[in-house]
Amino acid sequence: MQAIGTVHSPIHDRVLRDAREAVATIAIREEFAEALDGIEAYSHLVVLFWFHQSERPTSMMVHPRGDPSRPERGIFATRSPVRPNPIGLTVVRLLERRGNELVVRGLDAIDGTPVVDIKPHIQPGYDG
Amino acid sequence: MQAIGTVHSPIHDRVLRDAREAVATIAIREEFAEALDGIEAYSHLVVLFWFHQSERPTSMMVHPRGDPSRPERGIFATRSPVRPNPIGLTVVRLLERRGNELVVRGLDAIDGTPVVDIKPHIQPGYDG
Repeated sequence: MQAIGTVHSPIHDRVLRDAREAVATIAIREEFAEALDGIEAYSHLVVLFWFHQSERPTSMMVHPRGDPSRPERGIFATRSPVRPNPIGLTVVRLLERRGNELVVRGLDAIDGTPVVDIKPHIQPGYDG
Repeated sequence: MQAIGTVHSPIHDRVLRDAREAVATIAIREEFAEALDGIEAYSHLVVLFWFHQSERPTSMMVHPRGDPSRPERGIFATRSPVRPNPIGLTVVRLLERRGNELVVRGLDAIDGTPVVDIKPHIQPGYDG
């Protein structure tokens, strides 16, 4: 696993309430820039990133949204950043590509997060 | 990165035309079985898996669907299994949980594929 780019975002803490409207930039490393060719054809992208500030899980159960008033659930039944492989996933709106940078809306990853993959977001049933 | 489970599927080759209807089982390793607690609440799951049979990319451009008649595109504008971090992603229908096994429909990963994460599939805008 290697970082293919980095998130630049106005979101700096892990309470991500405003992520849905936030505009962020993903700076793709130069050696991977060519891999963006044709990406402008898609309105939405799946971004996979590394939860680089998360602890390792000490239990397989977590409180949803870190809220102790909510009953614990299995990690795989939540999107908790504390998980065996700390990979995060968000579907974002692609606003613009500028060379090796993608300007996106809705990325709930904090500033500085390493990005590990980007894929077109294709609705189920689409044969593209 | 570690495998949290393994795909058992009738699909044995990499031409995955029938994946959408295929029923597969994901066997979760015993030490992670508790992390499935509560997963039955979801009709659809996001499955992240490792493209364990894929070559490393020698170029940042690929023919979509491996079809040489289609013009090359950047890897991040495709779902090619040949990518810098060989992580695959599919949204599946959860049919049944049996202990540490998940029976799912629509998993386009071949038999024996290592699974690296499972998350609930939540539609954008859902506040769960």
